[in-house]
Amino acid sequence: MNTERMKVPDKSSGDVILLLSCRDRPGLVSRISHFIYERGGNILDLDEHVDPVEKIFFIRVTWSTEMFTIPLSELESAFAPLAKEFGACWKIRISGLKTRVAIFVSRYEHCLQEILWRHSIGEFAIDIALIIANHPDLGLLAAHHGIPFHVVSVSRDTKEEAEGQELLLLEQHAIDTIVLARYMQVLSPHFVHCYPGRIINIHHSFLPAFVGSSPYRQAYERGVKIIGATSHYVTEELDQGPIIEQDIVRVSHKDTLEDLVRKGRDLERLVLAHALRLHTEHRVLVNGKKTVVFD
Amino acid sequence: MNTERMKVPDKSSGDVILLLSCRDRPGLVSRISHFIYERGGNILDLDEHVDPVEKIFFIRVTWSTEMFTIPLSELESAFAPLAKEFGACWKIRISGLKTRVAIFVSRYEHCLQEILWRHSIGEFAIDIALIIANHPDLGLLAAHHGIPFHVVSVSRDTKEEAEGQELLLLEQHAIDTIVLARYMQVLSPHFVHCYPGRIINIHHSFLPAFVGSSPYRQAYERGVKIIGATSHYVTEELDQGPIIEQDIVRVSHKDTLEDLVRKGRDLERLVLAHALRLHTEHRVLVNGKKTVVFD
Amino acid sequence: MNTERMKVPDKSSGDVILLLSCRDRPGLVSRISHFIYERGGNILDLDEHVDPVEKIFFIRVTWSTEMFTIPLSELESAFAPLAKEFGACWKIRISGLKTRVAIFVSRYEHCLQEILWRHSIGEFAIDIALIIANHPDLGLLAAHHGIPFHVVSVSRDTKEEAEGQELLLLEQHAIDTIVLARYMQVLSPHFVHCYPGRIINIHHSFLPAFVGSSPYRQAYERGVKIIGATSHYVTEELDQGPIIEQDIVRVSHKDTLEDLVRKGRDLERLVLAHALRLHTEHRVLVNGKKTVVFD
Amino acid sequence: MNTERMKVPDKSSGDVILLLSCRDRPGLVSRISHFIYERGGNILDLDEHVDPVEKIFFIRVTWSTEMFTIPLSELESAFAPLAKEFGACWKIRISGLKTRVAIFVSRYEHCLQEILWRHSIGEFAIDIALIIANHPDLGLLAAHHGIPFHVVSVSRDTKEEAEGQELLLLEQHAIDTIVLARYMQVLSPHFVHCYPGRIINIHHSFLPAFVGSSPYRQAYERGVKIIGATSHYVTEELDQGPIIEQDIVRVSHKDTLEDLVRKGRDLERLVLAHALRLHTEHRVLVNGKKTVVFD
Repeated sequence: MNTERMKVPDKSSGDVILLLSCRDRPGLVSRISHFIYERGGNILDLDEHVDPVEKIFFIRVTWSTEMFTIPLSELESAFAPLAKEFGACWKIRISGLKTRVAIFVSRYEHCLQEILWRHSIGEFAIDIALIIANHPDLGLLAAHHGIPFHVVSVSRDTKEEAEGQELLLLEQHAIDTIVLARYMQVLSPHFVHCYPGRIINIHHSFLPAFVGSSPYRQAYERGVKIIGATSHYVTEELDQGPIIEQDIVRVSHKDTLEDLVRKGRDLERLVLAHALRLHTEHRVLVNGKKTVVFD
Repeated sequence: MNTERMKVPDKSSGDVILLLSCRDRPGLVSRISHFIYERGGNILDLDEHVDPVEKIFFIRVTWSTEMFTIPLSELESAFAPLAKEFGACWKIRISGLKTRVAIFVSRYEHCLQEILWRHSIGEFAIDIALIIANHPDLGLLAAHHGIPFHVVSVSRDTKEEAEGQELLLLEQHAIDTIVLARYMQVLSPHFVHCYPGRIINIHHSFLPAFVGSSPYRQAYERGVKIIGATSHYVTEELDQGPIIEQDIVRVSHKDTLEDLVRKGRDLERLVLAHALRLHTEHRVLVNGKKTVVFD
Repeated sequence: MNTERMKVPDKSSGDVILLLSCRDRPGLVSRISHFIYERGGNILDLDEHVDPVEKIFFIRVTWSTEMFTIPLSELESAFAPLAKEFGACWKIRISGLKTRVAIFVSRYEHCLQEILWRHSIGEFAIDIALIIANHPDLGLLAAHHGIPFHVVSVSRDTKEEAEGQELLLLEQHAIDTIVLARYMQVLSPHFVHCYPGRIINIHHSFLPAFVGSSPYRQAYERGVKIIGATSHYVTEELDQGPIIEQDIVRVSHKDTLEDLVRKGRDLERLVLAHALRLHTEHRVLVNGKKTVVFD
Repeated sequence: MNTERMKVPDKSSGDVILLLSCRDRPGLVSRISHFIYERGGNILDLDEHVDPVEKIFFIRVTWSTEMFTIPLSELESAFAPLAKEFGACWKIRISGLKTRVAIFVSRYEHCLQEILWRHSIGEFAIDIALIIANHPDLGLLAAHHGIPFHVVSVSRDTKEEAEGQELLLLEQHAIDTIVLARYMQVLSPHFVHCYPGRIINIHHSFLPAFVGSSPYRQAYERGVKIIGATSHYVTEELDQGPIIEQDIVRVSHKDTLEDLVRKGRDLERLVLAHALRLHTEHRVLVNGKKTVVFD
């Protein structure tokens, strides 16, 4: 998990976040908190969870480093032996350090608009390095926010080539996290494999109800009294990735299909924004097909 | 639809409810409201809906009959010609007149307990004429509330015979509506056919997610962040009947399967009680695979 | 109530909405629906409510006028005698005809941003004729959407003069409805009196909890587990006007005051947008200190 | 805080819960988790919070004691020096050990009924030692569940004497926690003082809206679109104690005052039951006028 290296900011101190998971055993909290304490850190926030079935330990710790006795640049190497002993997946992040994000879109603007607006008022600790679109429609919106906008057309025949082009762009811009803001293309297993647990999708239904296409039409025809939206990490299996966040809204027989689409729009943008916030605050750990969300 | 005859109560006046659906055309509200007005009725509540796709008209009207110029006993025959002209499905009910209900249960007590308690404080306009169970476990609870309790065991081989026994009991008790309060048996198409739109089930998931058995286990394994419960009319196809009411509750990674069951229990009993109330207040009309709920 | 004259659109037919309230009496629905029927109208939607305490009748009827036998321009005068007989407050509106709206703002952008964005994708049947601000901060946002932006500074000494200036602008632009999108000034009774039931405010609390200033601080200090937002019509008494819509979001001990402000921002913009939609679809009738909302 | 002594169960091992709060300082988590680790405990669950304004540290830790090297009976005295050094308020509880509860009621049965039913299916780790009522009405319900029922009438003149009688009963039954299940009497400061943070009330409004009497009538007259219920610890000031849990339900112009009471009944019993569960699972810490709830 720790292949993504921590980027050290200019400031020499700040709050630090550790996300870690490993097989459960006695002493984990004690060892980790002692590691922090003996280096002068003060724990600000600690969340811990043990999966009672799988016996896996998950922890998120935030500590201040004002009195820290080692430089942040040495923190990872100092912690590595402990993590190795635990056989842990882990990462250490500087709180507030911006995650580099790429947004993928097609023609629907509401999710992109929501993220860009929240970004503009400082709600996310992210840099939106670029927007990739398979249609040119949202170029003006991107331009208004001063974000580079790349159109990469995708057809059945050109998909592999298009994804190659996208992966190159992502690498060139050192992208950490990809947001699919109603991007109407299915990514290949190879693409997904390159960004494990780092591609966030919004699906416009209350998963696992109404997988696949036209969920609002499906919901309308089924006559449900509540519709939902689901944000999840993308995995190779369509709409089956670990769920980060879901929310719902009531509908009634008075609501037409268009009403469902309109009400759903509000859900989609709020749920996706919430999931992105959780992800970029390093509050989400993947647990097999599920997530642990320390909110 | 009007095969179930209205039962006229002792009191000679009261509020009357008309539920009607037919192909839409101009003048329906005018004709119906005029019918009421010219007989001295005063409309207290009127809800109307036109399915914009199917062009079907639905209406629920309540009126007071204090100044009514015809006896209630003649109301149905007076209205019949109009309904015939419209080609309508319809029924007329006396507000507050109790619906005769049978409750089917297995071993789970929470839904039965909830309905019996609400019944005891007068929340429903129902007579609970009998409880039918395929296990004897809830007999004491029934006895405490003074409701006749019949155990009809069901196995694969005896199902047809058991249903025959049940149908006989229902007929003997002049049952109008059947509530499946976590009854763990699938009813045969023949049985369902005898009570169209009059068998109310509670399914312990947010349908159409997690149809069939063990929905909480399915939800736990999928890692959803919200669980639900769904009350619907029973049709021949399992868990596919028109939905009356749904509700949800948030869950998290901290919730074990047992927590889901516990949280779901509260949902199930509230959703089922709500659906039963809507049904017995004559607020639900079936529209193909969907419902119109005038709440 | 009918001092605001209906504006007839170019198209000679369309759907028409009647909003009416009067003292309850028998025959109202019949008389109104007959009026529509005998002129060839087909009722598409009808909602009716009788206040059981005050005995006041409220109705909202929508009908199509494709086969209407009188011109829309004569509809009001044709209906007036009936309304006069009922002693009714009423208005007739062409469905989809745009309401002329002015938005008042101070420095917070989120509510304005939300309304402008929804407006840009056609969610509201409104013309935003102008934005009035007591600070220049949001001028760029207004310019981006091409809406005239007027800065009218307000201080204790200049308030009367400022309001005079605002009222003039509103009259010049033939404004029907005013939206206070986090406008941080209290309007004078005289101003409010000029637009009765036509000034919509958003208050950042679950009224009547936390009236007045700093509701988020009050909520934080009280330790509530849920915060809310309330959209209401402005009356002379601060935060006491008829409530159109409210919504809530959960908070916890982990939420700082800043978190409450952030979470509340989402509530405020959704609740205000919802209320504006209800108002401009002519779904809200005032009932003394309360509203009847036919949604 | 630790005046209430831990009761050691027969079993020699089990899970243990520590609740602790003190002024924040570095090393607290490390010291506490080390204390557990060096005695062979395995942390199962840990929640921690630092009030960022008041700089107070709150923690709840659960650990298993299968391999614990000291007897549970010595745990408190072993931990006391650490707690003293921190200047902490703290308590240690055996998980699942039943809290001794008294329920106070008047005439409304729904909250009592809900708690007794949940208790009967094992949802709470409580012993309901007695029910105290100022009216005899609910005696039959208590008898059905086999709980001792004491009628202590209260009038203005006899209040002091009545409370004396109640306090005696509470002491005789070694009561830890008191639940006011719609008990329609205000407790004296002296009484409250005897059970600090251990008297749980349910108020039938969304506090701080509608304090005092008749909140449903107040809500009906104000025309709110949402009503709520609030469970809180009782303090000397009426309806001002630290809030444990709140929930809400939507209402509309169609709802009469009776509908509000009916809908509110469901809220009240669920919110009170939830709060009682949180309290008896030792998930609530008081933070001045607020609570920290580790759910």
